[in-house]
Order: sequence, then C-alpha cells, then structure tokens
Amino acid sequence: MLNNIRIVLVSTTHPGNIGAVARAMKTMGLTRLTLVAPEKYPHVEATARASGADDVLAHARIVASLDEALAGCHLIFGASARLRTIPWPQVDARACAALAVSASAATEEVAVVFGREQSGLTNEELERCHYLVHIPSNPAFSSLNIAAAVQVVTYELMMASLQAQPVAAGSGDEEHVPWATATEMEQFYDHLWQTVIDIGFVDPAKPRLLARRLRRLFNRARLDKNEFNMLRGILAAAQARHRAP
Amino acid sequence: MLNNIRIVLVSTTHPGNIGAVARAMKTMGLTRLTLVAPEKYPHVEATARASGADDVLAHARIVASLDEALAGCHLIFGASARLRTIPWPQVDARACAALAVSASAATEEVAVVFGREQSGLTNEELERCHYLVHIPSNPAFSSLNIAAAVQVVTYELMMASLQAQPVAAGSGDEEHVPWATATEMEQFYDHLWQTVIDIGFVDPAKPRLLARRLRRLFNRARLDKNEFNMLRGILAAAQARHRAP
Repeated sequence: MLNNIRIVLVSTTHPGNIGAVARAMKTMGLTRLTLVAPEKYPHVEATARASGADDVLAHARIVASLDEALAGCHLIFGASARLRTIPWPQVDARACAALAVSASAATEEVAVVFGREQSGLTNEELERCHYLVHIPSNPAFSSLNIAAAVQVVTYELMMASLQAQPVAAGSGDEEHVPWATATEMEQFYDHLWQTVIDIGFVDPAKPRLLARRLRRLFNRARLDKNEFNMLRGILAAAQARHRAP
Repeated sequence: MLNNIRIVLVSTTHPGNIGAVARAMKTMGLTRLTLVAPEKYPHVEATARASGADDVLAHARIVASLDEALAGCHLIFGASARLRTIPWPQVDARACAALAVSASAATEEVAVVFGREQSGLTNEELERCHYLVHIPSNPAFSSLNIAAAVQVVTYELMMASLQAQPVAAGSGDEEHVPWATATEMEQFYDHLWQTVIDIGFVDPAKPRLLARRLRRLFNRARLDKNEFNMLRGILAAAQARHRAP
C-alpha cells in the first residue's frame, strides 16, 4: 500500500541527512527516494548514515528540478515547519498519511516533498503541492532535523497502512497461556485467604477489607493459568511452613 | 501534561546521538533527559547535533545506574526493537503515549528507557519496565536510529497530550492512593524473593525464571502504596517462624 509513495528531498545541504532519510524510509517500508539537485551527492557521509539502507540510496533518482521529481504524481504534499504567509490547505502528518495511503492504494502516485535544512521549501515550491503537511511540535522550538521529520511522516504512513491494529493483549507470555477462569480465581482467593489466616497475618473475625483489596489487586493483574499454578504453589509452601511441628 | 515524563538513555555509544535525542525531545516539548553511564559525554558532537536544544543537554542528569535513573518512577516503558525471548506486556508507541500522558497528567512520574545503539536493553533492564514499547516498522529492516526512535515516541507523546485526556484509572482505590515507586518495587521484589526461598518454595541456586514470572505479574498489576504495604506485611508474616501454641 506504500508502493506508490515517493519521498522527494529538495536541495539537501548535508549528505549525512540524505543517508539518514534513506534509513528512516526503509525502516517504515518505503523505498522510492528522489533527490532534487543535492549539494553533495554521492558522498561517504550519506552512505555511512544510511546504515543498512544502501539499497534505497542506490536506487535513488537524482533530478535537476522539482518538475522532474513530480512527473506523473497525482497527489503532492509539501512539508512546512511553520505557518506560512501563503494560505494553503494544511494537514498534519497523521491526516497526510491517511490521504496518502488511501491514494496509493487506489494506484495514484503520491509525493511528499521536504525542503532545505535551513530554509525549507519556497512559496513557489509549496504552490506545487495539494496540501502543506506539518508535524505538530513545540511552538517555541519546532526545528525538526530533516531525517527526523521524514521519520515521523513515514511512521504515520506505516501506521496508516496497518490500519486496524492488532491489540497486544494477554499476560505477555508468548506461549499464549490461557487466562485463569472465574472458578479458578475463586479457588485462588479462597486459598489466599486461608493462607493469610494460617500465617497469622489476619484475624478471620475481623472485617474483610483486606480480602477486597487482595481481589482488586489480582483482578487488575489477571492471572494466566501458569501464574495461577505458581501462586497456588507459593501459598501451599507458606502454609506448610506454618503448620504445627 | 508532559512535565512528569523523563527520557532515559542507557550507555549510549555515540555522543552525536545524545545531541540528536535532545533536539528530538525539545521539538516535542520534553525537557527531562537522564543519561546512564554514557560512553563519551560531554562531547562536542553532542552539542553540535543538539542544534538549539543545548538547554536540554545542560540540564541532563548523568547517573551511574538504571536504578538511579528510575528512582521515584511510577510507570516505566522500555524500548525494544524486536520481539524478545522475554515475554512481557507490549504496547506500540501510540498506546505507550496514551498511557504515559494520562499518568503524567495524574502527577505520576513516567520514564521511557532507550538502550544501546547496537544491542538495546538487556533482559534484566527490560524486566524493570511495566511495558515494552515498540515502534511498528518494516519487519525486514526495523533498525531505527536511536534519535529517530525517540523522535517517534516523543511525537506520539505530543499528539496524545494534544488530545482530550481520559481520567487516569488508578488502582481503583477511591482515596487515590499513589503508586509504589520503582525503588519500592525493588524492595518488594527482594522481599518476595527472599520469602519464596525462606518458605522452601524455590531453590536459590536454580535459574530465576520464577523471579521473572513474579516480576511480570506484579508489574502488570502495578501496586499502589497501600497494596505495597499490605503485601510486605503478608510476606513478613509468611517468613516468621511458626510459633508453637
């Protein structure tokens, strides 16, 4: 679903940033990088910072103008750090990703364009775009590094492409141990209660506020069957120690 | 709402990455950086890559151990690039941000911990955490640069802070008892471990799989201070020798 999305960098100054952008893209499953008139490229720093994304660099298109970079594109976003004097439709990175992934899935060609490190995109370049995309940030310090900005936007593209997220659930046990049943939990609470009596922690004649607290704690945790068995074992050992000699 | 969230970097190798992390944090309105045993710091590369976030670097806490870094923390996330052999509750960056912002708004202290560039966090370090947090990424190339990972997580924190926050759940205790701190939880685990040895449930010479399971269970539950005191009392009672009638 990300196949039809290209990242375009305009006149990047530092070759290290180009490498870092390639790495950011690849981590999020994007491979199509277009460089418009990079200042120094190819360059050893680009390769070093790509750090395993050399293939993205190797297949990068290098063109002389933004026109060439955008040839064939149906939907274009221009990254803009700050509100511009130019009034233009704006989206944040999350909305950009939803629009871009939806267009890409419909086999439209999509471009997200990032400008120069110091000065961004010119108004003329931004006017080539359907939307300006901005990353919500600290109003007092909104200066994301260009590779960091690409990382956030491509992360949102990945998230949008995953759409319905599988929810991580369970106790964290990767063997997918089933949860203890309600019946087992009642056995556990009975056992726990008998144990705190046996070890002399509680007087059974007293109100059962403690019992409520224990229930609240272990209900919140939820026990899987392994944990249920483990705790039953610990309770039995504690009881045994306190049996009359 | 982000005031109570700290970013912790464990044994970072490259000082440039520390600077880039500081910049990433500041763009998303975070200021509290803790460095655990950085290899080279302070360093000119850190300052150069901070690029306007020098104040975050200047106020960074430098400590010798993860214990010191987590002192006073109520909710701890550990960044993990890949699925570990260690089964532990996992959340993605977005769910982490929702939990962290909600906790921070309830004046709880939150830490997000990032490991070494090459090897991440050790299993022992991950076991200090309530959740492992992962950034959804390309399964074939999930190697985000550490500053890029911090950028994504802090971006999600910023996004979560911009949204209307649900009320923090808490332990369910209507008196709003504060959570136990990381330091208290270590005391609890030490006490629990000594108790299961004392009552003869475990042979201390044996592998500590049981210790991991106990940590996973009680980290998942999270203990408030009342529960912490209650369980300490139960453990002490279980340890006490049976008194002859």
